[in-house]
Parts: sequence; structure tokens; C-alpha cells
Amino acid sequence: MSEPDIVKELDPLFNPKTVAVIGATNNFNKWGFSSFSSALAGSQTVYPVNRREEKIIGHTAYKKVTDIPDDIDLSVFVVPAPACPAVMEDCVEKGVKAAVIISAGFREVGEEGQKLEDEVLRIARKGGIRFVGPNCMGMWSATSDLRAYMFPLPSKPGPIAFVSQGGNLGGAVVMSAITRGLGFRRYISCGATADIQMEDYIEYFGQDPGVKVILAYIEGLNDGRRFINKVSEVTKKKPVIVLKPGKEEATVKAISAHSGSLAGTAIMHETAFNKCGVIPADGPEQMIDIATGFLTLPLPNGKNVAIITGGGSYGVICTEACATHGLDVIELPQEALDRFDKIFPPRWSHGNPVDPAGDRNFIGYLKAPTMLLELDEVDSVIFMGFGSLSGFSSMLTSGGMDSVIPTSMFSNMKGMDKILDGFTSKLASGEKPDLKSVKPFLSVFGSMLGSSADDMEEFLISFTQGMDTSVLADMMSAFPALMSGDTSQIGDMIEKLDPALSGMIAGWMGKYNKPVLTTTFSETETRIMDGVYTYPTAGKVAIVLSKLAWYKDYTEKHGVTLDKFELCEVLNEKLDKNK
Amino acid sequence: MSEPDIVKELDPLFNPKTVAVIGATNNFNKWGFSSFSSALAGSQTVYPVNRREEKIIGHTAYKKVTDIPDDIDLSVFVVPAPACPAVMEDCVEKGVKAAVIISAGFREVGEEGQKLEDEVLRIARKGGIRFVGPNCMGMWSATSDLRAYMFPLPSKPGPIAFVSQGGNLGGAVVMSAITRGLGFRRYISCGATADIQMEDYIEYFGQDPGVKVILAYIEGLNDGRRFINKVSEVTKKKPVIVLKPGKEEATVKAISAHSGSLAGTAIMHETAFNKCGVIPADGPEQMIDIATGFLTLPLPNGKNVAIITGGGSYGVICTEACATHGLDVIELPQEALDRFDKIFPPRWSHGNPVDPAGDRNFIGYLKAPTMLLELDEVDSVIFMGFGSLSGFSSMLTSGGMDSVIPTSMFSNMKGMDKILDGFTSKLASGEKPDLKSVKPFLSVFGSMLGSSADDMEEFLISFTQGMDTSVLADMMSAFPALMSGDTSQIGDMIEKLDPALSGMIAGWMGKYNKPVLTTTFSETETRIMDGVYTYPTAGKVAIVLSKLAWYKDYTEKHGVTLDKFELCEVLNEKLDKNK
Repeated sequence: MSEPDIVKELDPLFNPKTVAVIGATNNFNKWGFSSFSSALAGSQTVYPVNRREEKIIGHTAYKKVTDIPDDIDLSVFVVPAPACPAVMEDCVEKGVKAAVIISAGFREVGEEGQKLEDEVLRIARKGGIRFVGPNCMGMWSATSDLRAYMFPLPSKPGPIAFVSQGGNLGGAVVMSAITRGLGFRRYISCGATADIQMEDYIEYFGQDPGVKVILAYIEGLNDGRRFINKVSEVTKKKPVIVLKPGKEEATVKAISAHSGSLAGTAIMHETAFNKCGVIPADGPEQMIDIATGFLTLPLPNGKNVAIITGGGSYGVICTEACATHGLDVIELPQEALDRFDKIFPPRWSHGNPVDPAGDRNFIGYLKAPTMLLELDEVDSVIFMGFGSLSGFSSMLTSGGMDSVIPTSMFSNMKGMDKILDGFTSKLASGEKPDLKSVKPFLSVFGSMLGSSADDMEEFLISFTQGMDTSVLADMMSAFPALMSGDTSQIGDMIEKLDPALSGMIAGWMGKYNKPVLTTTFSETETRIMDGVYTYPTAGKVAIVLSKLAWYKDYTEKHGVTLDKFELCEVLNEKLDKNK
Repeated sequence: MSEPDIVKELDPLFNPKTVAVIGATNNFNKWGFSSFSSALAGSQTVYPVNRREEKIIGHTAYKKVTDIPDDIDLSVFVVPAPACPAVMEDCVEKGVKAAVIISAGFREVGEEGQKLEDEVLRIARKGGIRFVGPNCMGMWSATSDLRAYMFPLPSKPGPIAFVSQGGNLGGAVVMSAITRGLGFRRYISCGATADIQMEDYIEYFGQDPGVKVILAYIEGLNDGRRFINKVSEVTKKKPVIVLKPGKEEATVKAISAHSGSLAGTAIMHETAFNKCGVIPADGPEQMIDIATGFLTLPLPNGKNVAIITGGGSYGVICTEACATHGLDVIELPQEALDRFDKIFPPRWSHGNPVDPAGDRNFIGYLKAPTMLLELDEVDSVIFMGFGSLSGFSSMLTSGGMDSVIPTSMFSNMKGMDKILDGFTSKLASGEKPDLKSVKPFLSVFGSMLGSSADDMEEFLISFTQGMDTSVLADMMSAFPALMSGDTSQIGDMIEKLDPALSGMIAGWMGKYNKPVLTTTFSETETRIMDGVYTYPTAGKVAIVLSKLAWYKDYTEKHGVTLDKFELCEVLNEKLDKNK
């Protein structure tokens, strides 16, 4: 069978101007209600089709799709399976270009269902209609704001394309990813893939320059060889992250009951998968973690990692995680050790992981990553405990930090109100921060943190480089209260540092062209901030970095040299903004 | 060497009445400042010792511990390592009973440090002083509200005892666990364990009836054989969850730089570990996950699991996770399948996992778990997507659910305000819910959810059994706004269901004596609510359940029959409250 041009074939599906929802209803309790509600929220003109009712949620209804006085680009089927062949005939007659068959009751219920499915496919092929499903939840397309879905799913545009053979899992992944700050260009709950196959979607995503990362949840494939042939072309250009259960016998049974996929195709050996260069994920959460990595980090040159940690034991845990996932926690060159000797107390770890061993002068922690990034031997830096302070601050304050810190701590700041006032009001009006003007303050504040005024100034110059001055102004505005002895805002102030941290880390990646992965102090989940994501645990960081390094190597072995910043669109937005 | 009575030996450490902080200072930038601040927040009388200053944060300071005009039970050392032998001599002279040596600069810095450590140990032994550390962050004890820690650490009393050879990791685990709603009876950052060994702490915890679960982070052991001998006695009675890096060569190096532990002892084979019955965790987060399981779930009889899922693909993922971790996702008996046929649409999965395949009538989802719990074959139930709706509701509303739901949806509720008013005001005054009085409302509301009024009533009777009536009143109070077309509170109402869900699930565990593990719809982290914890992912649920089943089996093989509710103190609190 010759293969048609996939872009021509599938574009009508993703970019319709008119949509008919066949089986739309006023009965709140049916999927035909929520599917129509969902479609209405998109940008298309949407027509309800219902054989009995005159109006659906206030919109004029039509008995058949052929009755609609407008061209129809896309039909959504929410009718019982036995009605689908006739409805598909109507769509052919109407000249509909594509369909989404949400209806269930096909191959997954046995022989009768398989016959119905074959019949619908035959009619669609005859009329040149490509369709999603059946037995799916529908699809979402950002390029046309199409919401041909079973219920109103939250949506956010972005560079991910995702095809899922499980609707609930797919929806949960979409919602989790959006909560984290990622966005989708396409999301398809593909169901039984009677017509459009998993590999067709992936091939289509591969040709779309707006798609940077592809996700797929696969229970079974109709033609494993075709999948491998098509997908191995895509993986040379962009990462395809795949969640594929089926290693256990119990899973094969569960898959058969769920999607009707055959056990034989359900078990696909990892070796076959590796052939086509997909990146395996071990769960829905890990799919999102890996996608986040590709979208927020430049690709590393290789597997050499340097770790800087806010705690020795976390350095140990991270080292073990890195080594377990095939990364090299390298020995640092003597010159580097000598340089660290100058900024850290003598008790520092003298090796990789770099552990300042409880140094109270935080300037060293923030200088060390750039000193590591400068080394040719280092491909990536993991910066532990400094990505996001949001969890940290809330835990500090919940622990009663403010009741323990004596108000006297801030007493020697008194009299600096005026110095700060001038500085803050200039910042608020959008001026660049003039750090010289607040040097007496830096001196006192620095001494509280164990740093000299010069150290503080040098640090703040780099810290505030990529920073929105209004954020800095906001932070500074908390000081007058602190000086008067009100320590209740300490947690708030710590949290306000987050955008500055993100900006600094993004800046390092832009400058050194190397990934910098961060973790929280607190193992709490965070959201992407200014293009930078902070992972909660060392284990996640190690897995994500190992996949990036593996993928860089894989593409090179296949003769493709990707630009390091080709995929990390979320980071690029932040870096472009600062240019 | 004969072994002393561990309870007599260590009790003075955990229950002091007076504390001296030696090295307390007014310099904000030194650990002597934050250590003293921390100690002040505890319930003891705390004295600062400083050779130069007269007052420390307003408290009279003493040049030496021997100058303090009071008995001293516990000394905290925050002085440089070379000063420690003399300070320990003073403590012996003073008759101090126990010490916490926060100071670093001992074995981890080489031969000189080792000599100092040996000297301090010799003096302490001579004077009968047992000590924590050196090179540690200190300790926390709930029985005496002791906060002998390096900085003010959040604290919450509870049934966990935790000893950690990493201070930062330990602190982060404590803070994460507290954020989740767990509490600690003891937490010790044990440092170099020059005197009190890892196995001594664990033996002590083993003898304390207030401790239900023991956690340990171990980098190296001074005497592996002694550890195995002592710990294998403890694991027969209560679970000991251990995080022990050191499988990789790179980790051994990192451990040596961090804690000075020898590579030889750092690599302890899993076989040796298994001998003594500890439960291995693969990261800090997993330690907390497993501890949460033991504290919130009764022990299962065996490995047989039944899964009920809000989505087929999640059932597949959960089945794979269970099978991978050695659990049996069993075939259900025919009678059970027949019973499910009566409550689910024909398309349901007809097997385990039980998947109602998108049934809109939610009553079935909530009946199914008890039908599974009734089966003798089933040891545990995993209830997917119904543990906590908090993440779900926020995502629904962020997705614009309310803008899509037509106000007409609630129009047929009009006129029921009065019926509800009477019901709600009775609830608010503490009366039992009289569901008969709101039957017309149940009929309309049920029909919106695809349920009959009888179904709704039956369900609500069981749902509201363990429920605080004020929570129900709070939920009901949102209906008048809904009826008038204001759907903005839907997310809020969904979230208010959470305590009711927790109460229902706790009630099932109390009634059937079997664990019920729940997951969110959204893979979001949740907090323990009314004794019940909802895990974010199927993978975590499978790991935790497999550890519980393994531990039950392990104790039985060693001739111990634990009561199923012996360990789950957090759940028991909820169940006792309802009695």
C-alpha cells in the first residue's frame, strides 16, 4: 500500500472551521451534553445534530448532518455504536473532511463490534474521511482552538503533541502538565485507532515545526513494523517519549479488557522499541518530567555531571541516582579544586559533589555553579536545593521561624530606611538598580548572611541582571517592616527570591550553553517559573538528564546534529525576553 | 563487651530538664546563634555558655558549663573541634548526663580529626556521658519538646522515630513529612556516630511503645554485624525503613567525602540487609511514602489486590505497577462479576481492574469498593481517582468548567431552596442529617448525576456516616447560589467533598479490616486528611502496598502476629474519633 502525504491527510482534522456534534443532547447526564459543551468553547462554528430535539443548549439542532445549511469540516460522533455506519454515510454525503468517533462498543466488545468498526472504516475510506477513534475521548488542537472532546478539558497552547490510547490517563497528563506550566499544540485521545494509527499521528507531529516534543501512551499497535519504520524517522529530529505498559502478564489481560488490543501486539520488546529511538517513560508523571527537561534545558554535550549541593547527604543521594542512570559524576581538575578552596571554608568536600559543608556565606553557593560550567570537562551542572525556595519558605514559617528569630537581629538596620526608600522608588519607576547607592545596607545585610559588602554587590549585579526591577522593588519593600522588628514577612521575602533565582539559572544556561538542573530544598512540587523548572528530587533530575544525554548521542549516531537550543522552547522564551 | 540497658542509657538524652548550649553567640552568622535560638524554643531551661560575652540574646551567659548555678542534663556543643575535649572534661566535672556535639572537624577531615574524636569519646566514656554526633545537626524529641538542633526546625509530635546520617536530608524528610501531616517522636541527625551507634538508636526506638515506624538514613556503619544483630530484633515488632546509598562506586567516594565513612562498610549488600528485615527505600520521598502507608493502613493479609478505577488506562498502569512489585491482581470470582453486572453499564471491564468504562452514575464507583472488600479472595483494594478531589477541582475550574456549564443545568432545582434551608440549618445545629426531608432535592440532583433518588439516599447514608455534619452543612450551603445560576462555586463544592471521601474510606478500613489505597485523579500531591492519605500515582501505591504485604509476611515467618491495626496510628485516631 502506498503511503499518502500525512500532512495533507490530517490537516483537515486539526484545522476545521465548522464542527457538527452528532448526538448532542440537553440531558446533563450524557456524554453528548458535555461533548457539545466542550466543542462550543472552541473557536469553530458548532452545530448540534439530534434526531428529536429542536434546540440543544439554546442552539438550533438538525436531524441529520446533511440538514445543516453550512459546509461541515469535522464531525464528532457521540451516538451509540450501531448508529455509526449510517451517520458516517451521512458525513460522506455531506462532504465532511474528518471525524472524531467518541462512541464506544466496537472491537473492545467482541466480534459484533469488530464488524461495526470494519463497516464504519469501509464507508469512511470510500468517502475520503480520516477519523480519530472509535472508543476515545476526542481531541484538542491549539492551532485552531478546537475542543472536540468528551468534556471541557483545561487547555493551554504550547510545543507538546500528545497521542494517548487511554483517555483518562491522557486527560490527567494534560492537566498535570498544564498545572506545571507546559502547553500542548495537539492532544488526541486516539482510542481504538481503527483508521488513523499511532504512527500516523507521530509522523504528522514530526513534520510540524511547532511541535518540539512528542508524547505517546500506547497499549497496543496494529502494525508494529510500520510503527518502527515511521517513528524511527521522527526520533532523529525530535524526542518521542513513550509510556508503554505490557511487561507483565496481568497487564496484558487488563489491556485486552480496556482497549481490546491483542496480547501479541501488546508485548513489544524494549529492544524493538530502542531500535526506533523512542524514549521510554515508566509512568505518566515521568513522561511529564522528561518533556519538561527537553523544553527547559539545552541538550548536554555528554554524560559528565558536576553537582553542587546545599547538603552533603543530598550530594550522596544525587551521585547514586546519577551513577545508576549512567551519568558520570566526574573527578574535578586540580585547578578547579584550588579555586573552590578560595571561596569555601576548609571543611568543604574537596571534590564532586561540591559541598560547602554548611558554609553560612551563601555567595559561594551561587558562585560555584558558574565555576563548574566554565570547565570543559563538565557537560551539565546539578544545583541542589537552590531552584525554588517556595516550599522552603512555607515550611520555615510553619515551623515558627519568625517566633524564634529575635527582633534584635534586624536592629542594626535601623536608619537605613531612607537609603532603601530612594533605591526602591527608583526601581519601581523602572530604573536599573544602582547598587552603589545602597552599599551601607549591603554591608549590614551581607554581614547577617556572612558575606562582605563587596561580595554582596558582585553577587547582586549578576543576580539582578535578568531580573524584572519591579520584582526587586517588591522584595526590598519588605525591609522597613523587618527593621522595625516584624519578622512575619521573612517567608514572603524568601519566596520573592524565586523569580530572581530562575532568571539567574536561565542566564547561566544561555551564557554557557549547558543545562543546569535544579532541585528544591524540600522535595515539594513546583511550577515552571520564567522558563526554568525545579525538580523536587535528585532521582528525577538524574533520570531526566540521562534521557537528554542519551537522546543527544542517539541523534548524532544517526547523522543529525541538533542545535542545543532547538528543543527547549520554554527556556528560549525566557532568554529571548531578556535580550 | 557486655551491652548496657539501652533505655537507661539513652533516656537522659531524650528527656532533659536543663540544657546548656556551649558556643552560643550573638553573631547571627554563626551556628551558635541559631542553635541557641532553636534550643530556646523548647520546653527546657536553657543556659548559654560563651567565654567572652555577658548576655546571649538577652540571657545571662556563663564562661564554662561548670559556672552554671543549676544542674545540667544535656549539653549542646557548638564550639570548634579542638575545643571539644576540654568542654567534655567540664561536662564530666559538672555531672552532665548527655551531649549533642554539633561541631565538625573530626574523622571526616583526616587523622588529626580522628584523634580529637577518640579523645572526646574517651573523656565522655570516663564520665558516663552518652553523646550524639559529632558533625551532626542535632536532635529533636517530642516527649520533652527538646530542640537541640542547629537551627529552628519545624516540629510536630507523632509516632515516627528517625535517625539520619545526613542532616540536610534528614531535615528535608522531616519537613516534607510534616507538610504531609505526619509527626515525629524523635528525630536525630546522628553525624559520625562516634559514641551512640545507628543500631543503638534503632534498638531504643524499638523499645518505645510510642514509636510505630522507624526511619534511618545510613551512609556507613561502624560494626555491620552488631547492626544486623540488634536491628533484626526490632524489625520483628515494628517496621524499619532504611535509605542506604552506596551501590555505585561514585557514591562510595561521595560518602567518604561527606561523612568520612569507610568504603568497606559503606557497601553493604542487600542480602545482608534483607537478613535483618529492614525495608529498603530508594529515596527520601519513598521513605515518607512507605511510612505513610504503615501509619494510615491496616496490614493486608496477603498479596491479592483488587483495583477499581475511574479510567481504563489508569487500571492498566496500576496493574503493571502491582505486578512489577510482586502483588497479585487476581481474577474475580463469577459471583462478583455477576454483582457488578447489576450496577455497571454492559461495557464495564468484566474483570480486575474493575473499570465502569465511563459510567456517568458515580454511585457505582462508590459501591464497588465495598463489594470487593467483602470478597475473601481480596486482601487489599486500590481505589483509583477517588481519594482526593482537591487537585481535580482546581484544574476543572482553571479549565473554565464554569464558563461551559450552562446555568440552565441547575434551573430545575429552583424552588428547593426552602427544603434545603431547613435541612442545612438543622445540620448546622449539630443534628443528624435527615435525608428523607430532602428527597425531592435528591431526586433532581441524582438525575443530574445519572442516579435515582433511592440510589442517592442509600449512598448518602453511608457517605455521611463518619462525617462531621458541619462539613455537610457547609457543602449544602453552596446550592442556593448554584440554583440561581452561579456555577463559580462548583470547584469549591467538589473540594468540600474531600473530608467526606476520607471519612468513607477510613470507615471501610475499620469495617472490613483491610487496607484501601487511593490515588488522585490528577497526580497531585495531597496531605493526610482525617487519617487517610491519597497517593498521587499508581506506582507509589503499588510500592507501598507491596512493602506492607512483605512486612506482614516477614513478621509471621518470625513467629510474630501483629494486630492489623497495631501500626496505623494515624488512621486509628480517625477511627477512634468516630466510635
